Amino acid sequence: MAPKGLFLALCLSALLVASWGRKVRHYQWEVGYVFWKPDCQEKVMIGINGQFPGPTIRAKAGDTIVVELKNALHTEGVVIHWHGIRQLGTPWADGTASISQCPISPEETFVYRFKVDKPGTYFYHGHYGMQRAAGLYGSLIVDVADGEREPFHYDGELNVLLSDWYHQDINTQAVGLSSNPFRWIGEPQTLLINGRGQHGCSLASHVLEGLSACEINSSQCAPVTLPVLPNRTYRLRIASTTSLASLNLAVGSHKMVVVEADGNYVQPFEVKDMDIYSGDSYSVLLTTDQDPSSNYWLSLSVRGREPKTQPALAILNYHPNSATKLPTAKPPVSPLWNDYAHSKAFTYRILALKGTERPPASATRRIALLNTQNKLNGYTKWSINNVSLALPSTPYLGSMKHRLAGAFDAERPPESFPGDYDVMRPATNPNTTQSSGVYVLDFNTTVDVILQNANALSANVSEIHPWHLHGHDFWVLGYGEGRFTEKDAKGFNLKNPPLRNTAVIFPYGWTALRFVTDNPGVWAFHCHIEPHLHMGMGVIFAEGVHLVSRIPKEAIACGMMGKKFMNLP
Amino acid sequence: MAPKGLFLALCLSALLVASWGRKVRHYQWEVGYVFWKPDCQEKVMIGINGQFPGPTIRAKAGDTIVVELKNALHTEGVVIHWHGIRQLGTPWADGTASISQCPISPEETFVYRFKVDKPGTYFYHGHYGMQRAAGLYGSLIVDVADGEREPFHYDGELNVLLSDWYHQDINTQAVGLSSNPFRWIGEPQTLLINGRGQHGCSLASHVLEGLSACEINSSQCAPVTLPVLPNRTYRLRIASTTSLASLNLAVGSHKMVVVEADGNYVQPFEVKDMDIYSGDSYSVLLTTDQDPSSNYWLSLSVRGREPKTQPALAILNYHPNSATKLPTAKPPVSPLWNDYAHSKAFTYRILALKGTERPPASATRRIALLNTQNKLNGYTKWSINNVSLALPSTPYLGSMKHRLAGAFDAERPPESFPGDYDVMRPATNPNTTQSSGVYVLDFNTTVDVILQNANALSANVSEIHPWHLHGHDFWVLGYGEGRFTEKDAKGFNLKNPPLRNTAVIFPYGWTALRFVTDNPGVWAFHCHIEPHLHMGMGVIFAEGVHLVSRIPKEAIACGMMGKKFMNLP
Repeated sequence: MAPKGLFLALCLSALLVASWGRKVRHYQWEVGYVFWKPDCQEKVMIGINGQFPGPTIRAKAGDTIVVELKNALHTEGVVIHWHGIRQLGTPWADGTASISQCPISPEETFVYRFKVDKPGTYFYHGHYGMQRAAGLYGSLIVDVADGEREPFHYDGELNVLLSDWYHQDINTQAVGLSSNPFRWIGEPQTLLINGRGQHGCSLASHVLEGLSACEINSSQCAPVTLPVLPNRTYRLRIASTTSLASLNLAVGSHKMVVVEADGNYVQPFEVKDMDIYSGDSYSVLLTTDQDPSSNYWLSLSVRGREPKTQPALAILNYHPNSATKLPTAKPPVSPLWNDYAHSKAFTYRILALKGTERPPASATRRIALLNTQNKLNGYTKWSINNVSLALPSTPYLGSMKHRLAGAFDAERPPESFPGDYDVMRPATNPNTTQSSGVYVLDFNTTVDVILQNANALSANVSEIHPWHLHGHDFWVLGYGEGRFTEKDAKGFNLKNPPLRNTAVIFPYGWTALRFVTDNPGVWAFHCHIEPHLHMGMGVIFAEGVHLVSRIPKEAIACGMMGKKFMNLP
Repeated sequence: MAPKGLFLALCLSALLVASWGRKVRHYQWEVGYVFWKPDCQEKVMIGINGQFPGPTIRAKAGDTIVVELKNALHTEGVVIHWHGIRQLGTPWADGTASISQCPISPEETFVYRFKVDKPGTYFYHGHYGMQRAAGLYGSLIVDVADGEREPFHYDGELNVLLSDWYHQDINTQAVGLSSNPFRWIGEPQTLLINGRGQHGCSLASHVLEGLSACEINSSQCAPVTLPVLPNRTYRLRIASTTSLASLNLAVGSHKMVVVEADGNYVQPFEVKDMDIYSGDSYSVLLTTDQDPSSNYWLSLSVRGREPKTQPALAILNYHPNSATKLPTAKPPVSPLWNDYAHSKAFTYRILALKGTERPPASATRRIALLNTQNKLNGYTKWSINNVSLALPSTPYLGSMKHRLAGAFDAERPPESFPGDYDVMRPATNPNTTQSSGVYVLDFNTTVDVILQNANALSANVSEIHPWHLHGHDFWVLGYGEGRFTEKDAKGFNLKNPPLRNTAVIFPYGWTALRFVTDNPGVWAFHCHIEPHLHMGMGVIFAEGVHLVSRIPKEAIACGMMGKKFMNLP
């Protein structure tokens, strides 16, 4: 049925996507493996309707998105998470396996129907196992509603979806991470811009030493060109769905003005380069005010880990130059990978645009989450307050709503960690525990979360972790070095903290977040680095689940739900 | 939870397996990916409790087997089929995804509970997607009940589980088979004996030209040694779970007496070598009557396809010789791969042991099944009467029992094929159709099935297909060349046809089977070649489904069943 179904899906997609301007936007997608050459080496990837990356969803604020998702994988379940969309009133459409829904079984179709309430730059991706890292992602762009205006001007848009790519299949990656001895996935082979990259070569070999020219063997790995007119302002919509890499992006000779982060407006500020962590999205304005006889490099490189991956290059193509005219300048030089001061300076400049909703003045509950790397019976894990997350097979949304005993660990995970824990050194006892326990949050209350970084298993190692919250934006109240203390709370920025859905913790540092529990549902909060989540680096928040109604049966008809609620004649 | 669970499972397995002699035999298994080196190259495989091949189940006729199977794969469902066990009264335990049960979801446990009613040599294997080819298999041996005796004498037993092995992962294999242009999996890299083989080398390099010696880098690929005492008779229990390869097995200087096929006794006959198709099992008696100062080769080679795979060798180790003492003779020379006369001669000699139940004298229905290779919208398929099997996501057993409309194609597949179809030439129109339709058989009737081979897509090509029936043994009434005619039915062997569960059709030939529809359930009947089944080469038989009761909910609580029968408060 696959080929016939695919053909139908393609036809219908074309038909429905063409119906621009309607309030309900229909998509028919088939998720399946495809042979693809994102960096000119052919591998098996997960595509949508035979394409990688998946199709871009484009809508206006207030629209309803309907995606009929057919699973055409052979033996794997699948889900898609709509990253940054809060799913107000539709927690079952959040697309998180084990949390908001059952994995969609092969040959089955699940209908995602949700509102995109807020303009911004978003993306979507797989949220089951490590399927995101197999290529299951794409862009989701929400324009302002008709009659509304963005608080900045631009003449055109350029979409820049960032990812990283491993030649090892995700199954082998996942098995290695779950093995004893542990097998780390290592650094990605290639960085991808809009699904295309260069492996073991550089588009800029004519101006760089030590790198060979790229032999392009397929349009699937052809250089990305971003066409522009001179003397115009462009909005670059940038999002990162990397598995591991933190990124730095720069455009040769051009400055950028950051205006949006994670679907929220920020106070505009100018940069020469910017950091993007997995799970982040940004809009930046770029003015094409340079010599129009040249093209220019957009360059992407790795931050926070000693880079073993070639920078990815794309071409900013000034009209009427040929798109294939390579810039004669060298690509912009990225900051040193471990220049954290540079990274922090960028991050600290992100503040809410005037007029953005301010946080409540205080929180009713504060949860401190210590991030540690640990051992569990010899297996390597990441833990939060010494609990490594183990997801249950029955989704929380169904089991909590219908009060299924035994579907997940009843014990509540800890609110904090020992007062004498030394975040600057490896744990004296690295052993951890595993649990599927839930942080149950009172509905309509204000919660502070202190993300506390620490030393990893090896001495003098502390890693970057971009934490992403589902179902909410949060205010980022502050960042700091070392262990968070009560004094630090006094310095919280309550005036113009940025609203985001992803926030980074820097090595040995802390990050403070605040949000209001006003969205009934069960929401993942986790490190957006795919192998870290796989190794247990996340927690589950539940709020107002009793207020959730009309959960579609097919979202939760699996595991213990089937056993308890199926009544056969 | 995987490591803790695994440890527990191992402990409990040991504990329960030790309780020999009880009537209920309990196993706790965890199915998960492991790094393994079956031919000294490390790959990711599917193992059970961390082992490949899976543990051997050993029971006595009349025992009940209970396997608590936990799925520890990351995103894939799993099932296990107990090949040759008829599942009398327990059709939901047959372990066929889409047919007898829902795939077991990751982190979930399904309990297989069934009786082994008949002594014999069996095996088990994955029956979802191409998971069998990833290594999900093992032996299942049923001894005669206490107080019973086998109709032949032997002093000891040797287990010989045969398989083939591809270095390409099964996902890439499956994607290639489902792609346009079609990508065939090719010949296996290695043949395995008890899960071990030699790749690109030979254990017999000291006596063979052109082959290098094997460098054994792990006990996982160490040579298989079969320890024997001189002047004894051994029962070799041989079963083949190959993905593709038809095999020929010989033991240097030794003859073998075939005494059992597929769990049924046969008239003993002596051979120098024997063919084994995927899905076959045999017992042969081997007398250690050769010079005891030597060891001897057991050699395994490919039949029916131009062999590109090294023969696998094992060592028949006469006591007190060292197990590592290599035979000084050359390994036995296997018959030419396309010497079909040799293969047919072997197959035709398999006849029922006197006293075996005879078939009913006539059948009430005859179904002729034409095997063809076809195209479907450019995709390559195998079809039966021009229908390529597409399995539904809701298992037939549940949807038929509970009369779920729309769960599979209602149209009945054809009973026969056009009278003017020329089986000796490629089809004039190779286009086919796809369906999930079912052959509904009246309960307690006698059905004849004529398997008719034909030319494949290319001229002068007709392949071997070993057809395996679930839920039944059948009588093999006859084999013939070319197109089956009414006259051929007159020559059916009704006197001593062998009872089997797998029967081969030779190129351009036909094979006639008879069975009684006395086992309520839904049963797959398919080519046992894994990629052929993946390409649609099978049919579904259903009989007496209304008589099936007490289907465990968890076997069928998926797909449309959840939607129809789940009653949420």
